[in-house]
Amino acid sequence: MKARVTVTLKNGVLDPQGKAIEGALKSLGFGGVDSVRQGKFFELELTGSDPASAKAEIAKMCDKLLANTVIENYAIEVTG
Amino acid sequence: MKARVTVTLKNGVLDPQGKAIEGALKSLGFGGVDSVRQGKFFELELTGSDPASAKAEIAKMCDKLLANTVIENYAIEVTG
Repeated sequence: MKARVTVTLKNGVLDPQGKAIEGALKSLGFGGVDSVRQGKFFELELTGSDPASAKAEIAKMCDKLLANTVIENYAIEVTG
Repeated sequence: MKARVTVTLKNGVLDPQGKAIEGALKSLGFGGVDSVRQGKFFELELTGSDPASAKAEIAKMCDKLLANTVIENYAIEVTG
């Protein structure tokens, strides 16, 4: 089973990396950029075939390792 | 207008960071993990209101800055 996890900074948390990318895009001539936020992305391949239990397991992985839940949110998408 | 960009390594490109996360998850007791691939994620806020032209503009940004198209693929999702 495959799953995609997206980890993003919570609203209000400063994102200097995103700001730097925003500045770089603007200096490259992309004027239509209002803001950029950078996050992380994980593609997991899992044994097992139950989407609900896979999602619960991945939530535990996020809490323990993949995300810093003090400043980050995560979204899990099990794609089967 | 908002857009989400996911940048992932192409198939066949080694992903040592993903391998390290896979090992860490296994040593934390998550036995059901077959493989992990790490990617990047960007949330962009754009001026303008035409999804098609926004997507074309973001593709240019990916080619120029956000992705290394020699080893990475990107996916663009305009969320309106």
